[in-house]
Amino acid sequence: MANTANAPKENEYEGAIDRGLEGIIACSSAISTIDGTTLIYRGHTIEDLAENATFEEVIYLLWFGALPTAGELEGFRGRLARSMTLPEEMRVWLLGMPKKVHPMDFLSAVVAGLTLHDPEANIMNITAAVGKAVRLTARIGLVVGAYEQARNGRWPIEADPTKSISWNILRGITGKAPTPAQERDFDVCLILHADHELNASAFSARVTASTLSGMYSSVLAAIGTLKGPLHGGANAAVMAMLRQIGSEDKIDSFLANAFASGDKIMGFGHRVYKNGDPRAKILRTMSERLTSEIGRPEFYRMSQKLEKLMSEKKGLIPNVDFYSATVYNALGIPDDLFTPIFAASRIAGWCAHIMEQYQNNRIYRPRARYIGPMDARYVPIERR
Amino acid sequence: MANTANAPKENEYEGAIDRGLEGIIACSSAISTIDGTTLIYRGHTIEDLAENATFEEVIYLLWFGALPTAGELEGFRGRLARSMTLPEEMRVWLLGMPKKVHPMDFLSAVVAGLTLHDPEANIMNITAAVGKAVRLTARIGLVVGAYEQARNGRWPIEADPTKSISWNILRGITGKAPTPAQERDFDVCLILHADHELNASAFSARVTASTLSGMYSSVLAAIGTLKGPLHGGANAAVMAMLRQIGSEDKIDSFLANAFASGDKIMGFGHRVYKNGDPRAKILRTMSERLTSEIGRPEFYRMSQKLEKLMSEKKGLIPNVDFYSATVYNALGIPDDLFTPIFAASRIAGWCAHIMEQYQNNRIYRPRARYIGPMDARYVPIERR
Repeated sequence: MANTANAPKENEYEGAIDRGLEGIIACSSAISTIDGTTLIYRGHTIEDLAENATFEEVIYLLWFGALPTAGELEGFRGRLARSMTLPEEMRVWLLGMPKKVHPMDFLSAVVAGLTLHDPEANIMNITAAVGKAVRLTARIGLVVGAYEQARNGRWPIEADPTKSISWNILRGITGKAPTPAQERDFDVCLILHADHELNASAFSARVTASTLSGMYSSVLAAIGTLKGPLHGGANAAVMAMLRQIGSEDKIDSFLANAFASGDKIMGFGHRVYKNGDPRAKILRTMSERLTSEIGRPEFYRMSQKLEKLMSEKKGLIPNVDFYSATVYNALGIPDDLFTPIFAASRIAGWCAHIMEQYQNNRIYRPRARYIGPMDARYVPIERR
Repeated sequence: MANTANAPKENEYEGAIDRGLEGIIACSSAISTIDGTTLIYRGHTIEDLAENATFEEVIYLLWFGALPTAGELEGFRGRLARSMTLPEEMRVWLLGMPKKVHPMDFLSAVVAGLTLHDPEANIMNITAAVGKAVRLTARIGLVVGAYEQARNGRWPIEADPTKSISWNILRGITGKAPTPAQERDFDVCLILHADHELNASAFSARVTASTLSGMYSSVLAAIGTLKGPLHGGANAAVMAMLRQIGSEDKIDSFLANAFASGDKIMGFGHRVYKNGDPRAKILRTMSERLTSEIGRPEFYRMSQKLEKLMSEKKGLIPNVDFYSATVYNALGIPDDLFTPIFAASRIAGWCAHIMEQYQNNRIYRPRARYIGPMDARYVPIERR
């Protein structure tokens, strides 16, 4: 057992009821862990990977357990590149779609549609699983771009398979080729969000996979789980809060009001990290630089002041969502696409978890404690 | 605590790792429980409901906690009746669909499509949740019928909103109006499959709902989880086995071969029931009658002989899947629609669990025990 420092306490069985399985170990996993103060992917600290690796290398690492050799990476990038297309039917789906749909519902519908058109969708072996993982990972970010173009009355922008996933997602959404610096910043964001131990959506993917359901079904479950505001929605809520506050001088009164009315301040605290989210530190630096580059340094200054006050007054420190909000905004991503973008990076972890689940599977079948009535008897309807 | 007889043992925390949360209580629930030897919905034994109630009454019971009065049932049936339609877009989706798709993938895709066309899809309150539950429950069975018609080159058969869900599902699939006896038999099947405590798909729905994601996302997760052969696929596998065996006199050699090669015999045993599945008993009687009515009594006789031998040789008794196979077959349902039909009844339980989860929510976020490497360092690619 490599890591016990931050392991859950034993025997919390009773306490787990209605507490979201807090403290319960649901499975063993060699994919990622939270080692007291940092996040580890397959033995690498998130800082090491954010500094040195590309998202494509990190996907390979998460799926296959080690960073690829040059030859392996070339082959892997080639496979991703060949999947950087959306099926012809995409145009038919877009035409048949109502004007206003939730971007995560759009993502689910397109992934469900891709399932129908993937000839390997129901082939259950590890080779087919990797193939589906490649196609899903190459495409989900393109679907987000297709959504953004569609709501502006445009067809999806065709991907450039010679470029990275990160380049293609940014171009697909904004319509503009990102600079190398923007591409690299976004690549780091994708790395930071790629996996996070047994987060709710990865757990959800494993629960679905545990009946030996397929890769697409399991990813659909994860997308649905990520959609919930308690999971994927926090960074968009942070951006909305910053816009609502409007300027630095209004932060004190905003916080006072929020504390008085018991409102939750988004982007702070984490059930697992108690000493600060290592991803937030990397994103903080990026936020400072990027908000200044786009001429909106006030977003960073407001964030900094919020961080300081939340720490002083509530003892809470920023999590990954807090600074990713201003980073995504500065990269030109609309607020309501923050969660779909999260999916486009977390797909790497989801696929890793699904494949790991298949390899040492048991169906997830916990119990409920019954608190309902007993001894009810059917009474004919006219006598009820 | 009304029921402790069959409650999981305490402190199985360590043992739960990689054992599918076996023995772990994930939540409290007032919906259904397994009371030693029978299944209880909201205090009613499954025998009581199978003998007396209709599926519509049972849906109401599962969602609202008590059987409806005459007025309540009339209102509820009216709401279901008004939702017994598929959107106009259904024809476009059917035209754009590849020839051969898995029926559960079809179901997921249509449910994802229905989400986009439901104006309440992203309204999060209990009134909207009930509305969505009504629409999903009224429609899922119709989608199964649409699939069956589509693969035979026909448009969906329009539902008759004056008839029951059970009548409409059977007519939608077979194209023939069921007899009152067939309608009632199938209604009992729907009742028997409507809920089952924290089965994998209901648990999956609750995990998705626990991020405060919507009813549709949560049901999509459940459909994906049910799709897996370890959950929803068993009764179709039973039917395939009976066809493969072919006749009563070949059972001995079939079993001998299966035991010798370690093959699992489908439809036997259950992780939770140790003394026999109460639903199997009801279905056994129904199977005997129905297989004889359609002139295929050998299916029942083979089932009986398998039951006897499995009990003698392995100490295993039939579960719900064993006799539902021959019942569904006798009702004219194609083998590969057994799992989608399961969804059309379990949707009642899924919606009950999702609504209960919303009412006392905490995000499901268990932990994983890390068994991967530590202290890996990034090495430039040319030196790997």
